[in-house]
Amino acid sequence: MIETNLYPSRCNVEPGLLKRKDPVYYGPPASRASGARLSARQIENYVENGFLFFKALFSPSEVAQYKAVLDRLRQDEGVRADEESFLETDSHEVRSIFNIHRRDPVFRELARDPRILQPVMTLLASPVYIHQSRVNYKPGFHGREFFWFSDFETWHVEDGMPRMRAISCSIVFTENDFYNGPLLLIPGSHQYFIPCLGETPPDHYKQSLRRQEYGVPDPESLKRLMDRGGVYPACGPAGSMILFDCNIMHGSNRNISPWPRSNVFFVYNSVENYLEKPFGKQKQRPEYIASRDFSPLRAD
Amino acid sequence: MIETNLYPSRCNVEPGLLKRKDPVYYGPPASRASGARLSARQIENYVENGFLFFKALFSPSEVAQYKAVLDRLRQDEGVRADEESFLETDSHEVRSIFNIHRRDPVFRELARDPRILQPVMTLLASPVYIHQSRVNYKPGFHGREFFWFSDFETWHVEDGMPRMRAISCSIVFTENDFYNGPLLLIPGSHQYFIPCLGETPPDHYKQSLRRQEYGVPDPESLKRLMDRGGVYPACGPAGSMILFDCNIMHGSNRNISPWPRSNVFFVYNSVENYLEKPFGKQKQRPEYIASRDFSPLRAD
Repeated sequence: MIETNLYPSRCNVEPGLLKRKDPVYYGPPASRASGARLSARQIENYVENGFLFFKALFSPSEVAQYKAVLDRLRQDEGVRADEESFLETDSHEVRSIFNIHRRDPVFRELARDPRILQPVMTLLASPVYIHQSRVNYKPGFHGREFFWFSDFETWHVEDGMPRMRAISCSIVFTENDFYNGPLLLIPGSHQYFIPCLGETPPDHYKQSLRRQEYGVPDPESLKRLMDRGGVYPACGPAGSMILFDCNIMHGSNRNISPWPRSNVFFVYNSVENYLEKPFGKQKQRPEYIASRDFSPLRAD
Repeated sequence: MIETNLYPSRCNVEPGLLKRKDPVYYGPPASRASGARLSARQIENYVENGFLFFKALFSPSEVAQYKAVLDRLRQDEGVRADEESFLETDSHEVRSIFNIHRRDPVFRELARDPRILQPVMTLLASPVYIHQSRVNYKPGFHGREFFWFSDFETWHVEDGMPRMRAISCSIVFTENDFYNGPLLLIPGSHQYFIPCLGETPPDHYKQSLRRQEYGVPDPESLKRLMDRGGVYPACGPAGSMILFDCNIMHGSNRNISPWPRSNVFFVYNSVENYLEKPFGKQKQRPEYIASRDFSPLRAD
């Protein structure tokens, strides 16, 4: 089967807003979606806004356990030196550690937790596998901002994800408020695809996780999305979870507080949406950024 | 009279929190402060928190007038090239224009508006003069953050302001929300002085308005202030005014929105607190940064 490129980007394209060509919710009509962990109202909200927030879904003792593992890994010299770890440009503190569900049994189990898997599989109406996983750490006063972007744009161009049928899950280990750089989302932006300008240089990912230059949407299109949808800050207590569509425009500001911020991040992709050859010209990125193990997850 | 240095900084000092040695409010007991534009409750709030917010104090048509002048000045090549104007490092857009109350009749008049002067003179219980004035412009997506600092620390060390008896006034010309880099204040922080480390290099001000390196408080002391007082964001509609004590710790984050942010900023110093020789070792900064015209303002 020859798959056409429904979402061209970083090639000869004009910037602007293209209407999304895929469903957001893949299941039966929300009113008939029974047996799931989601209400019809939640499903409708997800379709409209592109995300769902679950306040304090995980208990303080669960969060303490995840944090303890993260703290141990952050101090570990082997982990710091690992190519799957990324450090802050300035302070050299650990910013992200990838492949966390393969690195530690606690996170392996968390990735399969029914509180995550059930709503994700309900929304995508299929079994899923983990496309990417990582823990992030944003230290007090030093965490940098991340400019607005769509994950899907990158996963499509650089990893060969054909359609918009993946969901990201972020669980915060620290209270998130406006000042420690929470995840910010533009509600409704998942309904549009913004082609980005410029071609991707080789091995771009090594830099892009620290500083963004490619895959950055143009200001005019962004303004249209933000004038329309505003901004939703994913603020809430530790243990809160947010599920968001792979194409929603999101970013974060600097952590200007003394309070660090940490979270775990799992990307669930439908097994029917497995990766092909990247749609851009570069060779595919490594396994820990874009897994090619498509075997479906099962709730433990 | 030999004035001793009550607030040593940027010399051989230990960081930490020193208790403020000056009043915050200089008038008679708040309950007896009559004839002023401030209620006893407002005065008590100002003493406790270090600031007062006045929502939409100026009308939309007044704001439109201020904005029009600002826009005209920002485009003016002569103003852009003026040494009293400061540009963004990256985008070369105008970030600040100083001495605005001497540059334009609209702002000359605004600086004397009784809605500002009356509460300021009530709180400082004396006539005042303008120590510094400027308009600021933070463009969409490009406005940089400003790390936490106390104005007084700089005005004391670099300009020779002896005591804490000055008030800053900021009036916003654009709606301020969390995403376009509003002024952030740490309530209660005006009660402490944090000595800063490092000596000031010559002509520091030329850089410091664009990037901060000196006069930066240590993270440990800042954390104590923020754990205690939290953060107050000066969000509100265009035309809102905030008055804040010269020693309150404040800053702002990046403007990650497409919405620009602009405001005017006047510093009113008590005529009894006029500048002396700078308490640091450097020569005094230019007149447009720290005026030595101490003649009292009169409401028009």
